[in-house]
Amino acid sequence: MKVLVIGANGQVGKHVIDKLIDNNHEAIAMIRNTDQIPYFEERGASTVIADLEKDFKHAFYGVDAVIFAAGSGPHTSADKTIMIDQEGAIKSMKIAENFGIKRFVMLSSMAANRPEIGPETLRHYLYAKGRADAYLRGTTLDYTIVRPGGLTNDKGTGNIKINEHLNEFGSIPREDVAQVLVQTLQSPQTVKQSYDLVSGSTKIDQAL
Amino acid sequence: MKVLVIGANGQVGKHVIDKLIDNNHEAIAMIRNTDQIPYFEERGASTVIADLEKDFKHAFYGVDAVIFAAGSGPHTSADKTIMIDQEGAIKSMKIAENFGIKRFVMLSSMAANRPEIGPETLRHYLYAKGRADAYLRGTTLDYTIVRPGGLTNDKGTGNIKINEHLNEFGSIPREDVAQVLVQTLQSPQTVKQSYDLVSGSTKIDQAL
Repeated sequence: MKVLVIGANGQVGKHVIDKLIDNNHEAIAMIRNTDQIPYFEERGASTVIADLEKDFKHAFYGVDAVIFAAGSGPHTSADKTIMIDQEGAIKSMKIAENFGIKRFVMLSSMAANRPEIGPETLRHYLYAKGRADAYLRGTTLDYTIVRPGGLTNDKGTGNIKINEHLNEFGSIPREDVAQVLVQTLQSPQTVKQSYDLVSGSTKIDQAL
Repeated sequence: MKVLVIGANGQVGKHVIDKLIDNNHEAIAMIRNTDQIPYFEERGASTVIADLEKDFKHAFYGVDAVIFAAGSGPHTSADKTIMIDQEGAIKSMKIAENFGIKRFVMLSSMAANRPEIGPETLRHYLYAKGRADAYLRGTTLDYTIVRPGGLTNDKGTGNIKINEHLNEFGSIPREDVAQVLVQTLQSPQTVKQSYDLVSGSTKIDQAL
């Protein structure tokens, strides 16, 4: 599959690129700066220069699936939360629909579907992510929404706990999150599903 | 009519309270602090203490109509833009629907329906306002959305230009905006309509 990774230069995005290539997909890294090109080309990914705050539909030509892994991050100024996490995501969905690209995998965040239980400092971020996720559920896309717990830079274990709703707040290495996002492309039963995700004891390919 | 004014202590909200009383409505000022009570009681409005970022549904008991005039303002930190302008507004709509309060008048902002033409520094604000307006159009409420141009503190002239879509960006005194919001309550043809609004040459009651 030819897969566009939006937010490829992010901490999860870079792992997503690697996992796509490991799984014999054609990875296209959507990036903002030309100086990021060599990093991705060395890994065997192609690149497209585009900016979520501008017109970026050229990035979608010929694409089979989209993984949205962009994030302004919960600690950036909140105008970026609106522009990137919420509106950038919604614009990506609209472009995918217009281009007839059905498969859309969204990296969300645990508690995005219930911001009121999130910490107050993150609440605006969770609302924005939740608003984008809600929009996605209303589209005609074959979506999968993945809401991981706290992200760590630990090496992936390949073992997860994933469910439509988890009661505990756990953490999970970014590498494992990336593997889950890529694995959903090979798991048709994940279409039109939303999941909470933390580290656990089930192998990723068995869990999905 | 018993009218709840959300954001009553704001610059437009205070005018809305005055105009409601001038037009023989029962005005309820939703405010956050008890020290704001005397200001409103002196004018003949009742008050209810409530906070858009908390549980505020108690403010809606026995209400016939809601005027949403709250705003974090385009220059506050954008997490407030999400929490107040977008999510506070959407929660207000949900409460009104749950309470069977049909009439809902929204103070929006010119260009909220086309943020991409707005100035870059305001764009996140316009997106948030537009997202709330779009949500309102999807509800069962008898809404009116009013999108004024640049707000001034000049004395009201009582003369406006109002249309579903205006090509020019003008300005308008806050007092006139307040009068328009209140006038919509007496103008059934404004139900399920959205308007751009600037100063003009037509008397408010004739324009609506």
